[in-house]
Amino acid sequence: ARIVTLPGDGVGPEVTAAAVAVLHAVAARYGHEFVFDEQLIGGGAIDATGEPLPSASLAACQAADAVLLGAVGGPKWSDPNAPVRPEQGLLALRAALGVYANLRPLQVHPSLANLSPLKNDRLRHVDVLFVRELTGGMYFGARTRSADAATDECRYTVAEIERVVRRAFELARDRRRHVTSVDKANVLETSRLWRSTVQRIAADYPDVKLEHQLVDSMAMLLLTRPNRYDVVVTENLFGDILTDEAAALAGSLGLLPSASLGDRAPSSGPAGHLLPATGEGSSVRPAAASTLMGLYEPIHGSAPDIAGQGVANPVGAILSAALLLRHSLQLEAEAVAIEAAVEQVLRHGPHSRDIGGQAGTAEVLDAVLAAIE
Amino acid sequence: ARIVTLPGDGVGPEVTAAAVAVLHAVAARYGHEFVFDEQLIGGGAIDATGEPLPSASLAACQAADAVLLGAVGGPKWSDPNAPVRPEQGLLALRAALGVYANLRPLQVHPSLANLSPLKNDRLRHVDVLFVRELTGGMYFGARTRSADAATDECRYTVAEIERVVRRAFELARDRRRHVTSVDKANVLETSRLWRSTVQRIAADYPDVKLEHQLVDSMAMLLLTRPNRYDVVVTENLFGDILTDEAAALAGSLGLLPSASLGDRAPSSGPAGHLLPATGEGSSVRPAAASTLMGLYEPIHGSAPDIAGQGVANPVGAILSAALLLRHSLQLEAEAVAIEAAVEQVLRHGPHSRDIGGQAGTAEVLDAVLAAIE
Ligand SMILES: CC(C)[C@H](C(=O)O)[C@@H](O)C(=O)O
Ligand SMILES: CC(C)[C@H](C(=O)O)[C@@H](O)C(=O)O
Repeated sequence: ARIVTLPGDGVGPEVTAAAVAVLHAVAARYGHEFVFDEQLIGGGAIDATGEPLPSASLAACQAADAVLLGAVGGPKWSDPNAPVRPEQGLLALRAALGVYANLRPLQVHPSLANLSPLKNDRLRHVDVLFVRELTGGMYFGARTRSADAATDECRYTVAEIERVVRRAFELARDRRRHVTSVDKANVLETSRLWRSTVQRIAADYPDVKLEHQLVDSMAMLLLTRPNRYDVVVTENLFGDILTDEAAALAGSLGLLPSASLGDRAPSSGPAGHLLPATGEGSSVRPAAASTLMGLYEPIHGSAPDIAGQGVANPVGAILSAALLLRHSLQLEAEAVAIEAAVEQVLRHGPHSRDIGGQAGTAEVLDAVLAAIE
Repeated sequence: ARIVTLPGDGVGPEVTAAAVAVLHAVAARYGHEFVFDEQLIGGGAIDATGEPLPSASLAACQAADAVLLGAVGGPKWSDPNAPVRPEQGLLALRAALGVYANLRPLQVHPSLANLSPLKNDRLRHVDVLFVRELTGGMYFGARTRSADAATDECRYTVAEIERVVRRAFELARDRRRHVTSVDKANVLETSRLWRSTVQRIAADYPDVKLEHQLVDSMAMLLLTRPNRYDVVVTENLFGDILTDEAAALAGSLGLLPSASLGDRAPSSGPAGHLLPATGEGSSVRPAAASTLMGLYEPIHGSAPDIAGQGVANPVGAILSAALLLRHSLQLEAEAVAIEAAVEQVLRHGPHSRDIGGQAGTAEVLDAVLAAIE
């Protein structure tokens, strides 16, 4: 399988290198061949090419079986009024890859509950899978700016809502069969469309329990009753805010992975070219070559304050690699092997600084590798 | 002074009656005359008149010195696709009164820290004043809806941003001189306008420290380091989400008040008519009659599950009455008297059910009254 890596800025390169090392170990142990192709994104890409997502990077991602990203951004490129910003590269990539469903699983490791700001009794049995719509809404709406006013448009189509909500219901079937849909239907028109679409789709999943919550109530309920929730599906901006809030419960952002998924699509680019063409210039590809487009990244940012020191926690990136194996390459056993290794390291150490230990990135990585091999 | 009460739905009438009783006690003790005028809003208004904010209610509010509201909404009127909804009454009222600055103070009472989902060491010294923009943004933007798509527009003018941000800086001067402005300037155009406007205004307040945070980070920081914040100013929708999240920290929503303030304006309506007119049909009023337009309400909702049982916690409503005295009537000593009385009741009881006690609304009210008189 071909995996593009986009290490990006700050601690991105350090944690991505750790995740790649783990993937190498998995390949060796299970007899797979992973081909890695490193590309530019974010601030580093701006410095090198003037663009946050150079076309070579995008083309490589589109031709790959999966993409593993570190983090983008940093103080050097942080002026929000600058014409080109690192985040634009990430947003353009999400849109171009069509990865509309951002999965952010939240579990609180029992041995790390002391790090959480929440009282430990609230954290028991917390196991939430957030499904955030990632390629629509205000993030990608029309904008205007004049000397004395600005606008952003939030737009959702039924089709955009339907595909991400169906994904949430499908995922709930493999879990506790409970979907919570979050909107602001008492105020917003897009939320009313969201809610009625969710209601219609729910009829196709009579075995899954559906609940609606307003985004403000949900911000509260995540703190007071986090263990009530199974799959939580919401639009882009609400998902951005709620998943970061939820991430705080885990005690450290450094622990959490994410997967951004598109639809299963015929592979294109290099891999596709190896297949017998069905005709000159044809875009038809055999279904057997289909792959789930996926972009995988830890949820932490570029953490410029600790970049280059070898102390970043690689666990979020390593668990993102496990999600890559599961969702894009259908290698479930291999994903579980990584997760079990991480679980062992979280239980027995070594622990990095963000979770109260003294270990550097390399030590944590070595412990994970030792647990896999 | 003339005070319009809008008890509204659910527990609204119960808690508003308690707040009014406290205002009567203050009037008696300090020798003031408060005239109360009860009006309809929300679901009850829809049932009685077909409209969530009847014009008689609005006219009474516009002529009053201050407005005290209970809560609106309930299951009977909760279909988000219904043509008329209780929340519309509240939104229309905020807009018509021009109360653009929503103040939501958050403190965690030491004797109630055990109720908070947050570990108690995180709650020490938490004292945040949220200033939420209340009459702009997506709440009041243009909307469209077709069979297969919907849009909401978020629009902010420099003038709208400037007035609420100046209010935040002014309030910070009476506190710890630290303003945190929250936006999503790495993605939204309105947020970039927000941030540059805040930066410009900050130059007029060199004695106040300014910090910017992205809304997703802030959702996290409110949990990990809540005691770092003094005044937090943000736009309407972000404020809705963040203030509810923050409210969860206090242990019970039933405890928290809010004040929504407009500008100091010449009084109009009945009070104005008592003044010598400067000319037939003139709208000029003497500046001495100016009053700060204010709408005061507990932050909890209508709580239909416990409505009519006499068990609602009246503290949020009573503290809202204290804010009314402070901000609209400039009766600081009287406001402090109410706050001290509530403080005493929270310390020694009786406590209502939401904060772990057994007392009903009447018992809590009686204890507050006894502490005032
Ligand atoms: C970097 C930023 C544009 C991004 C977002 O808001 O989506 C980040 O906060 C995230 O959640 O992945
Ligand atoms: C009832 C609703 C419209 C309202 C809002 O979203 O502003 C409420 O949540 C609040 O925060 O006062």
